Amino acid sequence: MDSERYKKGMELMRAQLGPMADQYVDKINSISEIFGRVNVEFPYGDLYSRSILDPKTRKMITLSALTVQGSSLLELSAHIKGALHLGVTREEVLEIITQMIAYCGFPAATNALFTAQAVFDEMDKGSVNHEEIEAKN
Amino acid sequence: MDSERYKKGMELMRAQLGPMADQYVDKINSISEIFGRVNVEFPYGDLYSRSILDPKTRKMITLSALTVQGSSLLELSAHIKGALHLGVTREEVLEIITQMIAYCGFPAATNALFTAQAVFDEMDKGSVNHEEIEAKN
Amino acid sequence: MDSERYKKGMELMRAQLGPMADQYVDKINSISEIFGRVNVEFPYGDLYSRSILDPKTRKMITLSALTVQGSSLLELSAHIKGALHLGVTREEVLEIITQMIAYCGFPAATNALFTAQAVFDEMDKGSVNHEEIEAKN
Amino acid sequence: MDSERYKKGMELMRAQLGPMADQYVDKINSISEIFGRVNVEFPYGDLYSRSILDPKTRKMITLSALTVQGSSLLELSAHIKGALHLGVTREEVLEIITQMIAYCGFPAATNALFTAQAVFDEMDKGSVNHEEIEAKN
Amino acid sequence: MDSERYKKGMELMRAQLGPMADQYVDKINSISEIFGRVNVEFPYGDLYSRSILDPKTRKMITLSALTVQGSSLLELSAHIKGALHLGVTREEVLEIITQMIAYCGFPAATNALFTAQAVFDEMDKGSVNHEEIEAKN
Amino acid sequence: MDSERYKKGMELMRAQLGPMADQYVDKINSISEIFGRVNVEFPYGDLYSRSILDPKTRKMITLSALTVQGSSLLELSAHIKGALHLGVTREEVLEIITQMIAYCGFPAATNALFTAQAVFDEMDKGSVNHEEIEAKN
Repeated sequence: MDSERYKKGMELMRAQLGPMADQYVDKINSISEIFGRVNVEFPYGDLYSRSILDPKTRKMITLSALTVQGSSLLELSAHIKGALHLGVTREEVLEIITQMIAYCGFPAATNALFTAQAVFDEMDKGSVNHEEIEAKN
Repeated sequence: MDSERYKKGMELMRAQLGPMADQYVDKINSISEIFGRVNVEFPYGDLYSRSILDPKTRKMITLSALTVQGSSLLELSAHIKGALHLGVTREEVLEIITQMIAYCGFPAATNALFTAQAVFDEMDKGSVNHEEIEAKN
Repeated sequence: MDSERYKKGMELMRAQLGPMADQYVDKINSISEIFGRVNVEFPYGDLYSRSILDPKTRKMITLSALTVQGSSLLELSAHIKGALHLGVTREEVLEIITQMIAYCGFPAATNALFTAQAVFDEMDKGSVNHEEIEAKN
Repeated sequence: MDSERYKKGMELMRAQLGPMADQYVDKINSISEIFGRVNVEFPYGDLYSRSILDPKTRKMITLSALTVQGSSLLELSAHIKGALHLGVTREEVLEIITQMIAYCGFPAATNALFTAQAVFDEMDKGSVNHEEIEAKN
Repeated sequence: MDSERYKKGMELMRAQLGPMADQYVDKINSISEIFGRVNVEFPYGDLYSRSILDPKTRKMITLSALTVQGSSLLELSAHIKGALHLGVTREEVLEIITQMIAYCGFPAATNALFTAQAVFDEMDKGSVNHEEIEAKN
Repeated sequence: MDSERYKKGMELMRAQLGPMADQYVDKINSISEIFGRVNVEFPYGDLYSRSILDPKTRKMITLSALTVQGSSLLELSAHIKGALHLGVTREEVLEIITQMIAYCGFPAATNALFTAQAVFDEMDKGSVNHEEIEAKN
């Protein structure tokens, strides 16, 4: 009895994150069902489903936002994977982070840079899934 | 005896912000010359001049970054003007801000929303310069 | 053709904020319909409607959150009005802000303190609506 | 020759955190005595000892504050333990964190959610002390 | 019946801020006595009274801290006045703010720069008190 | 074909951080050459090379800034090492962090305190390089 918004949201998450999407939502749901539900319905069902911005741009503006926030490197790492999955290149990811130096200073930007490198490294020695994601770029 | 980086940076600022660019830099320079100089040379001369990201994307990732930071509405307002000048539409500006609700919550996003509206209002009743900027969209 | 969530959310907003609720949502809607809609549906329709925390506690934990964030004094001011409307006393509002010194330091807490005083002052010389809100405490 | 405020503060910390209180203060003191002293005297001796807010409410407004700050997960984890010790339920802890999505966005709230789960897990497989704390809820 | 810490703290505040000190504390006290009391006793009575750092250094590290925080320009403005009063020069104030670009980016540093200029302007056209403060540099 | 600013910047970094400087820049460069280059040229080549503030003061105002930011403990840790290298004492490092409680609250200051202790511990059991750095204080 999932809502229409939930179904639409999950579809979008899967399109953007691949198999990671279900694993992530299952993990959140096992802690709090309401958190898991709104995590799918609100950003993905309500916001990302709108056509005014294309999915790639939506990911890019999210990468810069999480870079300047500085304290959510785990989420940044998930969104970097999602961005690569959608066709943002590694070079573009690094360029977004580098531009943010001007808006958040070196410490936060440096954390984001190391996070990006960790994602790239994980992919390079990674499982078939990761190689697939990489291959799309 | 301005550096090459300064000249390149000022050109880029003018291309992006129009006459606002010189006014802004003059204002900063009258307080601190070193601040004014690095403000032109570092983000514009060093970073924005690189071709990996196009100018429109660079502005969009800046709008999301300033939205989630929440405390620099004056700078956000300047970058919204710059974004419109580069061809980002009002609808896209509002969509970027709306997406950021998911990453910074309603209070910071609401501040950004009101800031965008104030820029639009200023332009609508605005001077010739502002109408020109608007006309490009 | 408003969603059930929207109706439930608007009812809750009105119960918490009085006539301010419709004015606020109309203002947001006039800038961006999607922002206005999710502002009602998500926090009020989805989250505040749950019974695990009572409305007074929900407002109190919001006051502390906005105090430590420091950069959303307009939203803090609206939530202080909402808190008073729900029966949180002025003394409790000030005590919440004072406790936050330990978690965000004096500068952010001082901004919140002045914001609370401005709300109280506005109410004391205020319109009938404001006196009504105050009378409930 | 501890001050009255220190004694009163230590008593309150012990009442709220159990044996964790002395361990924590000893750890801080071994690095900096002044830091350890004001940590007991200021929030606990000066602020928490006031009766305007009950201890449970004081903990709840602290959980929301640390959730939106986003960068102090270790302290958040200690305050979640303290909250459970004072009778806040796990369900209430998760609900506070979930409500904060609306004020700080998903990344910071997600960090807090995982932190809460880690505290619960530690307690479930935990030592006698932890089971005791848990038993009180 | 003020505590020793309060007396010591008020003395230090007066030494650092001049007549502004009493006005500021009176203003806070009229809103919340506990906030006013801890504002004097904790930073000034407990921390600033220690000799490990000299008063000028204490002010300088506060200016950089408030610059990077970005959302407390009123408090930053008060501390700039205090810094000038203690012999920090205008040039040093601007240099501290300029260095912070590297740690917080341009938006927050620019807000601080304009705040400093506003303080300088206020002093230049200012009352006798302000001229006195200025004269000490 | 490194720029003058780069050479000047690297010299300053080495003077301040010792052998750590080259390792750090090499690590950044291996991820992104532009990031590594501006990291040397901008803060070190442009800002730190100016004589208005002495190097020790420049490090102290950086320590307070990173303490209140709260989310860049790795960078804070590098700057603490740099500060000790330049003659700031351990006692002064701890005093700066302790003063920041008043501006950022206990959670962020506590993170900085534990970070400082970790640096001291690493140095005490450390390699010859670290002992050398320590010996200079």
